[in-house]
Amino acid sequence: MLSDVRSRLPAILANGLTAIGLFAMILDTSPATTDAWHLIFLGAVVAVWSAILAELVIRLHRHATWQQRFTYLATSEGAIDLASVLALPFGWLVVSDPRDASLFALVWSLRFIRHTTGLTLFVRVMMRCRVSLLSIASLFGAIFFGASTLAYIFERHAQPETFGSVGRAMWWAVVTLTTTGYGDLIPLTIWGRLLAGWVMIGGIVMFALQAGIIATAFAEELRRQHFLRTWDLVVTMPLFQKLGAATVADIVRRLEVRDVAAGAVIVREGEPGDTMYFVVSGEATVELEHAPVILKSGSFFGEMTLLFGTPRSATVVATQPSVLLVLDIADLRELAARRPELVDLIEREATRRRDANAMTRSPASADVI
Amino acid sequence: MLSDVRSRLPAILANGLTAIGLFAMILDTSPATTDAWHLIFLGAVVAVWSAILAELVIRLHRHATWQQRFTYLATSEGAIDLASVLALPFGWLVVSDPRDASLFALVWSLRFIRHTTGLTLFVRVMMRCRVSLLSIASLFGAIFFGASTLAYIFERHAQPETFGSVGRAMWWAVVTLTTTGYGDLIPLTIWGRLLAGWVMIGGIVMFALQAGIIATAFAEELRRQHFLRTWDLVVTMPLFQKLGAATVADIVRRLEVRDVAAGAVIVREGEPGDTMYFVVSGEATVELEHAPVILKSGSFFGEMTLLFGTPRSATVVATQPSVLLVLDIADLRELAARRPELVDLIEREATRRRDANAMTRSPASADVI
Amino acid sequence: MLSDVRSRLPAILANGLTAIGLFAMILDTSPATTDAWHLIFLGAVVAVWSAILAELVIRLHRHATWQQRFTYLATSEGAIDLASVLALPFGWLVVSDPRDASLFALVWSLRFIRHTTGLTLFVRVMMRCRVSLLSIASLFGAIFFGASTLAYIFERHAQPETFGSVGRAMWWAVVTLTTTGYGDLIPLTIWGRLLAGWVMIGGIVMFALQAGIIATAFAEELRRQHFLRTWDLVVTMPLFQKLGAATVADIVRRLEVRDVAAGAVIVREGEPGDTMYFVVSGEATVELEHAPVILKSGSFFGEMTLLFGTPRSATVVATQPSVLLVLDIADLRELAARRPELVDLIEREATRRRDANAMTRSPASADVI
Amino acid sequence: MLSDVRSRLPAILANGLTAIGLFAMILDTSPATTDAWHLIFLGAVVAVWSAILAELVIRLHRHATWQQRFTYLATSEGAIDLASVLALPFGWLVVSDPRDASLFALVWSLRFIRHTTGLTLFVRVMMRCRVSLLSIASLFGAIFFGASTLAYIFERHAQPETFGSVGRAMWWAVVTLTTTGYGDLIPLTIWGRLLAGWVMIGGIVMFALQAGIIATAFAEELRRQHFLRTWDLVVTMPLFQKLGAATVADIVRRLEVRDVAAGAVIVREGEPGDTMYFVVSGEATVELEHAPVILKSGSFFGEMTLLFGTPRSATVVATQPSVLLVLDIADLRELAARRPELVDLIEREATRRRDANAMTRSPASADVI
Repeated sequence: MLSDVRSRLPAILANGLTAIGLFAMILDTSPATTDAWHLIFLGAVVAVWSAILAELVIRLHRHATWQQRFTYLATSEGAIDLASVLALPFGWLVVSDPRDASLFALVWSLRFIRHTTGLTLFVRVMMRCRVSLLSIASLFGAIFFGASTLAYIFERHAQPETFGSVGRAMWWAVVTLTTTGYGDLIPLTIWGRLLAGWVMIGGIVMFALQAGIIATAFAEELRRQHFLRTWDLVVTMPLFQKLGAATVADIVRRLEVRDVAAGAVIVREGEPGDTMYFVVSGEATVELEHAPVILKSGSFFGEMTLLFGTPRSATVVATQPSVLLVLDIADLRELAARRPELVDLIEREATRRRDANAMTRSPASADVI
Repeated sequence: MLSDVRSRLPAILANGLTAIGLFAMILDTSPATTDAWHLIFLGAVVAVWSAILAELVIRLHRHATWQQRFTYLATSEGAIDLASVLALPFGWLVVSDPRDASLFALVWSLRFIRHTTGLTLFVRVMMRCRVSLLSIASLFGAIFFGASTLAYIFERHAQPETFGSVGRAMWWAVVTLTTTGYGDLIPLTIWGRLLAGWVMIGGIVMFALQAGIIATAFAEELRRQHFLRTWDLVVTMPLFQKLGAATVADIVRRLEVRDVAAGAVIVREGEPGDTMYFVVSGEATVELEHAPVILKSGSFFGEMTLLFGTPRSATVVATQPSVLLVLDIADLRELAARRPELVDLIEREATRRRDANAMTRSPASADVI
Repeated sequence: MLSDVRSRLPAILANGLTAIGLFAMILDTSPATTDAWHLIFLGAVVAVWSAILAELVIRLHRHATWQQRFTYLATSEGAIDLASVLALPFGWLVVSDPRDASLFALVWSLRFIRHTTGLTLFVRVMMRCRVSLLSIASLFGAIFFGASTLAYIFERHAQPETFGSVGRAMWWAVVTLTTTGYGDLIPLTIWGRLLAGWVMIGGIVMFALQAGIIATAFAEELRRQHFLRTWDLVVTMPLFQKLGAATVADIVRRLEVRDVAAGAVIVREGEPGDTMYFVVSGEATVELEHAPVILKSGSFFGEMTLLFGTPRSATVVATQPSVLLVLDIADLRELAARRPELVDLIEREATRRRDANAMTRSPASADVI
Repeated sequence: MLSDVRSRLPAILANGLTAIGLFAMILDTSPATTDAWHLIFLGAVVAVWSAILAELVIRLHRHATWQQRFTYLATSEGAIDLASVLALPFGWLVVSDPRDASLFALVWSLRFIRHTTGLTLFVRVMMRCRVSLLSIASLFGAIFFGASTLAYIFERHAQPETFGSVGRAMWWAVVTLTTTGYGDLIPLTIWGRLLAGWVMIGGIVMFALQAGIIATAFAEELRRQHFLRTWDLVVTMPLFQKLGAATVADIVRRLEVRDVAAGAVIVREGEPGDTMYFVVSGEATVELEHAPVILKSGSFFGEMTLLFGTPRSATVVATQPSVLLVLDIADLRELAARRPELVDLIEREATRRRDANAMTRSPASADVI
């Protein structure tokens, strides 16, 4: 947990700085802000802007040629960086009031998205179900136009002030279809209320449909990305190359990837456990009193707890930033039932290593964990 | 992306025109519209109506016999076309105010649905889960009647103006059950508020149930339609006829169909890629300097990137409007594990073509991509 | 479609009658109701009550012994019937105003549920996921109590009238947690608003969780019920007894049950089709000019359209109320790939019947459809 | 059902007591509370507090050493217990008004969560999909900041009172994005309303995404926990050890665990049934007139109803608190089709027991049920 935080520190710092800048900008718009505070807030905005500028300059400097730099600026990340830097000066140029100029710092809110994989995923999910969503959108459009016009027809004589044009009725329709229900425009006639009831139900049905579509596409896309990332790690491990392709595909679907920082405790002696670990890259150490065992890329540990249900027999610490593949006990059991060769392999490997350790007189081995 | 837009141009134009007509109608209802603007809006409505009429006449003219024409008008598409044309004249006949007559153009909003596959899909999904939805609807009905009557009983003495009849309490119940919450009718007694709390929670539970039902049915129906469309394309390809029926059914489930317009770039040299393509119909050209390779129906390309992880080695452009089947790298890997004969087939085909190309002294072949 | 309506006519009539009674009761509560109309509405309520009484008497009369009658009244259906009959007399006894007495007819709204399979299904789904839902409910309870108390603490000095006790803050909390948002109680302090924002988001997350749980359980329960019902029909058909148990289980999962009334047209000559039918019980006739072919329980038809893609070659009409199993083209194809013996069986049967028909000089057979 | 209630009695009592304490605290805040009632409510709060203190003391006393006691207080359950006890004295110390001091009893609402498995499950589900949820949260953040700033820009001149700072616009944005819609801040300009429409739709889309993510993760986590718990029970039964690992994994996925209290009736003679039972631990008795049959751990019953469709031939009562594994008829059929060895095993066991019973002249056996 702590190690997770450590490896994400740069992103957290960057997001925190952006948030400070945005909050300064927001507080600056308050009518209660005095001139003294205004200067402080303005200073904070400019300071954050300087940090963003510095970050971009350093990033660009890291790229060797100008062509690489332009290529970076053309990526979505680079474009957000560039826009974040240019927003404020642009604001100062076109707007006279400095408080209003700070509003251009709004562009910075895009930086929250930059540091997550969310936007790419979101775009891929939307692309995946664009045909279905377009269908829903056109259905939504038809209901929206229909409800607005009908509401106008039903209510215009009863409430000429509020439902006096189809445009005003459209505002009512969107507020009602999304079940927001501000309550500023409310149908009064019996027909208007019957229409409103159906519009509300129709809105809920349509958003249920949409939730269903997006949820299905999202689950599919996540599964796909997980498969690709895990596969690329699994194929680098000699251990799994002894297994058939069908078994590997089955394993890949069940492994989870975990990045750990150097110094992170992966398993702790005496604790119960329901996971085993494969070291893809980096290095971990089994902390045994007499002679610590170094686990390099390609080794695995924690299988004894899974196979025999005993607590962890030693603590394992990552000595370098490492990438691990984690196998859950439920998944190991299902795999063991369908692919007995996997457990065979793990047991054979464990025996081989214990024998090798015994030959070198090492008093312990990774598979005692 | 651009080629997608090109092939959908007629639908986009038709929808745009309809939208202009509807917006003119909507703006015309605004009390702020002057007489001059009214004439402009009316003109726009009439112009769009003329375009819709012309479209229908051309469509009908294309059909040879009168019987075919009536058959077309009996389809849902034809019926929407006919209704769109007749709506305005009907409005001019029955309503005296031309602004009100324009409101009949509301029928045009159905045209948005006509150009998508959404309505058919929507109807099929609703038919598929009609038994479950009917159950929910009757449960909703029972809760709705019960909540209205109880709210009337609890609130009628405290608020005789607003909860003075069960009918008024029904308006409160539908606004509350759908969690719209306008706030015009609010229970004040303790019993009324306890009831309201349960009605809100009940509404959310019921719509969660309904979302679950619709989402399940939607996912099932989409899977079915995808299978049918892809199957019809796959069986036309000689390549797949060498595989067993079980393998084909497995492939069909994983392929995606893509329509590309003539001139569209399918893969671009030097880019990384995670898809391979099968040409179902149309024609694509591998843009090699010395001798471009023509890929006709039945060939495939892009497999080298998937098999070896190299970037695309050449650009491929569609030279005719083409239908492609796209296979994703995640799916290829899973398929390869379960159906090794597929990768064998692809590799054999690729080798065969390379040899054939070598014999004809062609310096390149599709499988270098 | 029409035949569906016909077979459900009794239920539709009963529901319609109940609805009329309820609407008469509802309209009777309107302050605008004159004495003349009041008499009419009262008459309608009494008439519907008489019909419900008559229905119950007839039902009870059908049972031979008194023990059977009491057993029926102890079922949920019988209990709703009895309560529907007793509600009004009870109302007349305890309430003096006849308008108020009619309100007891509210019990009738339970009759909507009686005629659907919905309630049983709903109860089973809720039982299936009761542990998870209880967890969510206790989480909801903790958030609800916490939010109410905090809102009271934050807002009581700013708005002593509206947030003057935790009880009043609870009303705000339920309205906000369910995102109903009447707008009668709105936090004004900065801390109250921060709390409100998190309460809204918390409410949505919790209802998303709940929707996910219910949706999963619902899909599972529907699948289970479908399997059980279809299995019971499939095992009665000699045709499928030639197949192995694994194949039958696979088929059962893909078949749909359809009840058709006598006289219903099942397939129509010349139409395209994507389904084939197995006759479980009842009788259907292939309408051929020279000699109609009778299809009894155990036969199937419509397979030619699926196997060869031709339109229906004849019209088939149900001559008795029949139960059919429907197999979709997408499912047939997937089944054919995984279970080739099924298509073999269908083709063998079709040939056998054609030969048998040829021997008896019958000019047509069911398998030309 | 009743036996379920009995085994959960301690939890129900504890929750009930906590609820009484919370309600007394809540009612005490009402301005209508007289001094007499105030004393009663205060007494109730103190009484509940004493009960909570007593419970904690007893719990700690059960642990032998001080180290164990501190370990317990460090678990989430122990921490909630300790906080519940300390909350009130802390309140009395820091707050002068005893009514306000009672508000600290709010901590007790956490006790609802303590007695369910909900919180652990909830935390695991959130951890499982934390990457996706973080993406959604950052997207939400970006939209939230953007919408607030734009609403401020569009509305500040039209409504300087309500949209006079970005902070106030943020309140509008959260109320609108969650579709709560209090209606206290409503955009009036055309641009503000267009923005509001998109914000509402964006909010719904984002929460649909989030519902999809949580629902997928929840279903996965439930499946995993069910597999683990059932597996641990299944491997203790000698019966299943005769089956291959793949068959066992298949069975585990379909069994349900049920805890029954001593004296609970499991199946009742003459009733139809669709489940069979395996006794994991405890003891059940088949109530036959001549000689009741004792079913110990490892036996099964109810299979005759499933295999032959007959009603239950005898009543079975749990004579000790027992853990049963329940197999549904739909699952047995699917299992029987895929794993014929299971039904063979059940039939062989049933025959063996019948023969053994016949040898000992016992007139009945468990497999007649």
